[in-house]
Amino acid sequence: MENKNYQHLTRTFQRLSRFSHLSAIAGWDMFAMMPPGGSNARSEALAELGVLQHQILTDKQVGEWLRNAEQENLNDLEQANLREMARHYQQAALLPESLVEAKSLAGSRCEHAWRTQRPNNDWLGFAENLKEVVKLSREEARIRAQAKNCSPYDALLDIFEPDMTSARLDVLFGDLKSWLPELLTKAVEKQASKTLIAPQGPFPVEHQRQLGLEAMKRLGFDFNAGRLDVSAHPFCGGVPEDVRITTRYNEHDLLSALFGVIHETGHARYEQNLPRNWLGQPVSYARSTAIHESQSLFFEMQLARSDAFLQHLLPAVVAQFGPQSAFEASNFVAWNQRVKPGFIRIDADEVSYPAHVILRYEIERALIDGEIEVDDIPALWDEKMRHWLGLSTEGNYRDGCMQDIHWTDGGFGYFPSYTLGAMYAAQLMHAARNAMPDLESRIASGDFSTLFEWLRQNIWQHGSRFGTSQLIQQATGEDLNSRYFREHLTARYL
Amino acid sequence: MENKNYQHLTRTFQRLSRFSHLSAIAGWDMFAMMPPGGSNARSEALAELGVLQHQILTDKQVGEWLRNAEQENLNDLEQANLREMARHYQQAALLPESLVEAKSLAGSRCEHAWRTQRPNNDWLGFAENLKEVVKLSREEARIRAQAKNCSPYDALLDIFEPDMTSARLDVLFGDLKSWLPELLTKAVEKQASKTLIAPQGPFPVEHQRQLGLEAMKRLGFDFNAGRLDVSAHPFCGGVPEDVRITTRYNEHDLLSALFGVIHETGHARYEQNLPRNWLGQPVSYARSTAIHESQSLFFEMQLARSDAFLQHLLPAVVAQFGPQSAFEASNFVAWNQRVKPGFIRIDADEVSYPAHVILRYEIERALIDGEIEVDDIPALWDEKMRHWLGLSTEGNYRDGCMQDIHWTDGGFGYFPSYTLGAMYAAQLMHAARNAMPDLESRIASGDFSTLFEWLRQNIWQHGSRFGTSQLIQQATGEDLNSRYFREHLTARYL
Repeated sequence: MENKNYQHLTRTFQRLSRFSHLSAIAGWDMFAMMPPGGSNARSEALAELGVLQHQILTDKQVGEWLRNAEQENLNDLEQANLREMARHYQQAALLPESLVEAKSLAGSRCEHAWRTQRPNNDWLGFAENLKEVVKLSREEARIRAQAKNCSPYDALLDIFEPDMTSARLDVLFGDLKSWLPELLTKAVEKQASKTLIAPQGPFPVEHQRQLGLEAMKRLGFDFNAGRLDVSAHPFCGGVPEDVRITTRYNEHDLLSALFGVIHETGHARYEQNLPRNWLGQPVSYARSTAIHESQSLFFEMQLARSDAFLQHLLPAVVAQFGPQSAFEASNFVAWNQRVKPGFIRIDADEVSYPAHVILRYEIERALIDGEIEVDDIPALWDEKMRHWLGLSTEGNYRDGCMQDIHWTDGGFGYFPSYTLGAMYAAQLMHAARNAMPDLESRIASGDFSTLFEWLRQNIWQHGSRFGTSQLIQQATGEDLNSRYFREHLTARYL
Repeated sequence: MENKNYQHLTRTFQRLSRFSHLSAIAGWDMFAMMPPGGSNARSEALAELGVLQHQILTDKQVGEWLRNAEQENLNDLEQANLREMARHYQQAALLPESLVEAKSLAGSRCEHAWRTQRPNNDWLGFAENLKEVVKLSREEARIRAQAKNCSPYDALLDIFEPDMTSARLDVLFGDLKSWLPELLTKAVEKQASKTLIAPQGPFPVEHQRQLGLEAMKRLGFDFNAGRLDVSAHPFCGGVPEDVRITTRYNEHDLLSALFGVIHETGHARYEQNLPRNWLGQPVSYARSTAIHESQSLFFEMQLARSDAFLQHLLPAVVAQFGPQSAFEASNFVAWNQRVKPGFIRIDADEVSYPAHVILRYEIERALIDGEIEVDDIPALWDEKMRHWLGLSTEGNYRDGCMQDIHWTDGGFGYFPSYTLGAMYAAQLMHAARNAMPDLESRIASGDFSTLFEWLRQNIWQHGSRFGTSQLIQQATGEDLNSRYFREHLTARYL
């Protein structure tokens, strides 16, 4: 057999991908369909499969095949596939089983207690559990850092965003910090002079659903290979052949579900257009969390909140809910481009969002690298929130460092992806505009096909074939920088 | 470690049960949720898991543990669990992998081609594929028969209905054959004198769904541990902690979805009430396909089509669809107790249903035991249909031996379960009535709690602890016989 070791590997990763398929669908079901009584049995079933997948991936034999396959005669794509296989193997095989288990346990305990601690503003109770999570995450980071010969935080960053380091983040985010606070202040001042009319509900759920489906259709979602459902926390799940996105409806807030659906549609189209011939192999996976986020933000922020798209979508909104003065075109556009700094990250507009992210990046990096301790978080949070957004969270843990569960399961290193995604999205849109001079008028007339074809050719079809730097350079002619994000915000908000 | 071998086995079967959980949910999803584009990836994922489950179950180590565990110090329940483990192991380990694969392939091919062959009435085309399925099923039966020292057909029967043999079936069905044709004729004659009013649609799907949910609620379905959805072919799936039943709606036929839902609710309540402390272990599984069918038929035929229940349910029907003359009480009862022999088994009433089943039992037994060949089926079918129901299927394969897919995947030995289930159900209802003299008035007033508690104690909570004979004897004081089915049909239809 030619390339025997490589063939063994592709078979192994195909198996793993099939098990991931079942895990993805059962996971989607858990959040979108499952009645509460199924919870324990489902968790146990998924954990059992997780153990099996970990065993298959970290089998010593896989390590041998990886070493031997390097000597085999592989073409470019196969080599990229092998590189990604090795990445997944190393990430999984580095950690001792006992640490993985302890982390999973501590994370569950922290997240479970958080559900009551947050409403009670119980920082001391939460901190106790979080300390255990941080302790284990530091241990994980230490082991990974040793293997990669980098700082502990950089080792965690690498899980989510290969090619990214805190040194580069400091440059990228440092640049943002030099101009974003002033831009934010100006945008808020500018908007203060206009009085906007808020859309008046109720907006019946079934009509919201129809509007969401209509938006998905216009945005090219393939309903032969996916669905829209409801869950408490919206997400994009499933598998490339069958992408499951979810939203949640609030009868008094039309726009959060609508833009949520558009956001997830961006994730979904990336998944639906990953390289079909390679599905099941690591080279076909989405490149990174930041690139994934760049696609959802491209759809939500670059495309859907643009004047042209909002005016294109407006008749569909009116068709579902009837006319009202808030749906007058200029008000509808302005309402969907409001800037309003607040405590809660997930409610933030695109101008203030980076503040939430950079704040956490700085705190989590210092935490993992051992420069601060869990007890230091609230004071740092308050200080940074005051500086960035002029808001104090002193004593208000619930709307401060306890506002979400991202840290409870030890997902340190993930946060930067959000703002990297926003920057990638702006840079991609800039390049797309250069490639298609008539893009604005196409968008205004509802013709997105050339834009999506551009994304398909430049991002989607490549999966993980290239590193993030190479991918973005090929697509836009330069590596990631914040210039286009600044230009975008300036153009839209000042 | 005490009972080391037995402990290894319980851990192995727990793992298997967790994988079955994922398989059950992904299977449900495939029929109730999945968009068409997900089909290939899903089939591959489920097949991969199936191979894994087969490997785990048939591992030589499991055989050793089973042999050694027999010497260990086990209590009654553990011994029953061990017996069931051995049953599953033997059934799976007997067949060579190559035969399992060949059968699965031939079955898929036969079923796939059937989808176009049936509308085209293409018996010759269908027969060619069926011959391959029969050949492989005979091979399977031969291997199983050798191990069990019984006839080939009995070996297949044992997969679905342990303790059942064709010798016993010949007695049970022979008895039915001695009185059922005359009873059927008389019932039809009696009903011919009454003119019934058919319910007038359309019956909007959402109202049908609400009525189905209401019926499920009254019948004690636990919505904390299950759901109702839609699929092309209704079924009861999922896991005991999370039972998924499905139905299909026809706007012009109110009653088929309603009684379909009630039928599946019977299956569901059995699953939801299997012994909780033993879930995951084989002793907790439902006893057999016939006992399962006895619960669905108990709900649908014994309970829901009784005068008392129909009158109890009628106001809920009227509440959904408004009054009409078909919903006058005596007409509604009579309409739901119509007897009308026809070609199609799944549309048959409970009086003519056994004819469809016995006909197939006789044909499939002769086929597997090598007494007839595939080419003989149409003539035999026609002969038996004429004899039983006075209907000829000569040249009409589509409504004859090609009407459903039960044989295409080699599921020989399953058919008798339907009529055994009907007989079990009648015998159980007779015993329940003896135990609860006021049962009719309780049913009429919508109080089913004591009846369900009786089923729980006598059937549901035992899982697979006892063989079918012992189970039915403990519940009713005697082994299965057709007396109570005859009494039931006589009382309702003559």
